[in-house]
Amino acid sequence: MTKKVLKFGGTSVGTIERIQHVASIVKKEHLAGNNVVVIVSAMAGKTNELIKLSKEISDKFSKRELDVLLSSGEQVTSALLAGALIKLNIKAKSLLNWQIPILTEGEHSNARITNMNVEKINEHLNEKEVVIIPGFQGITKSADITTIGRGGSDATAVAVAKLLNADTCDIYTDVDGVYSTDPNKIPVAKKIDKISYDEMLELSSLGAKVIQSSAVQTAMMYDIPLEVKSTFTERKGTKIFNQENIDYTKSVTGVAYSKDDAKITLIGVEDRPGVAANIFEPLSKAQINVDMVIQNISSDQKTTDVTFTVKRDDVDKTKEILKEKSEIKYKDIIHNDKVAKVSIVGAGMVSTPGVTYKMFRGLSDEKINILAISTSEIKLSVIIDENNTLNAVKKLHTIFDLD
Amino acid sequence: MTKKVLKFGGTSVGTIERIQHVASIVKKEHLAGNNVVVIVSAMAGKTNELIKLSKEISDKFSKRELDVLLSSGEQVTSALLAGALIKLNIKAKSLLNWQIPILTEGEHSNARITNMNVEKINEHLNEKEVVIIPGFQGITKSADITTIGRGGSDATAVAVAKLLNADTCDIYTDVDGVYSTDPNKIPVAKKIDKISYDEMLELSSLGAKVIQSSAVQTAMMYDIPLEVKSTFTERKGTKIFNQENIDYTKSVTGVAYSKDDAKITLIGVEDRPGVAANIFEPLSKAQINVDMVIQNISSDQKTTDVTFTVKRDDVDKTKEILKEKSEIKYKDIIHNDKVAKVSIVGAGMVSTPGVTYKMFRGLSDEKINILAISTSEIKLSVIIDENNTLNAVKKLHTIFDLD
Repeated sequence: MTKKVLKFGGTSVGTIERIQHVASIVKKEHLAGNNVVVIVSAMAGKTNELIKLSKEISDKFSKRELDVLLSSGEQVTSALLAGALIKLNIKAKSLLNWQIPILTEGEHSNARITNMNVEKINEHLNEKEVVIIPGFQGITKSADITTIGRGGSDATAVAVAKLLNADTCDIYTDVDGVYSTDPNKIPVAKKIDKISYDEMLELSSLGAKVIQSSAVQTAMMYDIPLEVKSTFTERKGTKIFNQENIDYTKSVTGVAYSKDDAKITLIGVEDRPGVAANIFEPLSKAQINVDMVIQNISSDQKTTDVTFTVKRDDVDKTKEILKEKSEIKYKDIIHNDKVAKVSIVGAGMVSTPGVTYKMFRGLSDEKINILAISTSEIKLSVIIDENNTLNAVKKLHTIFDLD
Repeated sequence: MTKKVLKFGGTSVGTIERIQHVASIVKKEHLAGNNVVVIVSAMAGKTNELIKLSKEISDKFSKRELDVLLSSGEQVTSALLAGALIKLNIKAKSLLNWQIPILTEGEHSNARITNMNVEKINEHLNEKEVVIIPGFQGITKSADITTIGRGGSDATAVAVAKLLNADTCDIYTDVDGVYSTDPNKIPVAKKIDKISYDEMLELSSLGAKVIQSSAVQTAMMYDIPLEVKSTFTERKGTKIFNQENIDYTKSVTGVAYSKDDAKITLIGVEDRPGVAANIFEPLSKAQINVDMVIQNISSDQKTTDVTFTVKRDDVDKTKEILKEKSEIKYKDIIHNDKVAKVSIVGAGMVSTPGVTYKMFRGLSDEKINILAISTSEIKLSVIIDENNTLNAVKKLHTIFDLD
């Protein structure tokens, strides 16, 4: 008998009509003979509404109590969906995290699921009941409620699928899958039928709206096949699974971009061993995530220029730290936060020669200047002027046969 | 060290500003050196909103899931109040019913609290923490969530006070106490400073808006002193406690009325033993609550008229049952649902001669016809024409020196 985990996001359960529609999807899966466990988010807008209430009391609202507050959102959806299924003559039960229990470790608002009483869920499945579990939360060993970060219902779904040893994990959402690029900006974007975990992670800027990255990581680690699909259409979604099982016909799977990066250049840095470490160690300690790093060969053998990218929000903090550190010697520091990062991603890239050249030629044809480059096995990113973003994405989408 | 249970109703916690105000009241009690346990209702309107959602799914929404749904309301308030206290530098913690646990028995939506892990609460009180508990709910031995009926937060407060062996139980609400009659209709109504449990129960039609009857019953049974007071003023409220501790200066404490009664008369009923039982047994079995019963002495020694009152909603059902039962013989059945019940209540009545006469004379002075009478040790009720209700209440309020 197939064991399925179905997860429905906030928009999918945003109104009573939608909850009833979700119930009809769950009913279908149940009547098809599957053992069904459903993970639900809070109704769309609910979590923000609760956060707003807490902020009216304090900007530093107690994290323990915030978790108690927010966890109520998914509890409401669970009860409503269970009621809607019972109304459709399907045996269903909401099981709150403490009733199972689902155990977490780590701090409030950012915990992670470590274990679950699988027996409790199987007991109900054996009774032919649909089990409904509020996502995004768990309890600690000392029975405190913890949440697991925004979008955490995806993580709950994958963790439950893993611990239950489920056959599949379907992520129902308000889009019908992962696209080759942003369909709202680039109309020729196409839905991807199959994608590997790695590619999905590299395409996180496209996928973030669809599925949470850490959930994909967990799925990859335990080889749990995911499918991202729409609650509102019957069309096939995007299957996310192990690379080995994917037959690549194209070198590039998708084109992603992000506009929250900034480029910082240190000019005239002393060119000797240990300098890079001196620069990046204090940034790392300050939780600043450095993405791309370029160091030119120095012309005079004595000084060089070091360029790197950070999130735009971190620019001021980064410059402050570098100015404070007297052991880092340089002539000048400049930054540019009007840049964008454009990436092509594809597990087939590694076996296709000329992808890099093709990308650079394409951008050059559009008169787009490349400010920095970074590469990995399945991803090639460039930093360009922000104004050229859509032009670059369109061009790359076309030349890699994604239109 | 004084152990206090404070309960705040839905209006008292209806907005963030009000929750902050409640926090300031709790802070004061805590800083005065008391061990404070707070019971909260859902924010005003919240429970109805959740019920509405459930009804959009089904009129017969699963009772188990309804309890899961509704219990979230008090959970939200508990977290917000805990956060508001922490913001005021008071150590505070919400403890949900399953975290304590508070155990219930009985069916969903109508359970009763049977036990509680007192140690868990004392642990936190010993740490000088304010403990905040969601009212109106509990869990069964098999860890299902149960609610305990509308207004159940009062019952939670009294049950927690009893199990904790608290010194006092304060019911904070949006009125500043129990009045000698309805202050919205009779402007001369006065706040009662002290009242016995029995009187409070007999005045339920006045007190229903202030405190739940079953909570008063529990308080009476375990001799827990209650005080009903306003969240919004600093004025003293109404103390409810044991009759023996009250010094009665007045024979009558309050005048209550209700307009949801109807009078039914069976004309020409056979006058022999067992007839009354034949009439009232089937009504009792049908859960119809018969309030007052009057049987006249029969003039011809063979037939008599039997008059009784039931709730207006039950009139049709009552007549139907009496018509079905062939063993009940009578000439005619008539009813009047344009009647009101007016009662004077006072623990001092029993020791004051002439109260009954004074009441009848007062009504007669106003040309108000009495349709039925019933008496108990501390209460005297009459049924009159509905149109005379306010006249009657005003007159009685005056002649018993309550203005």
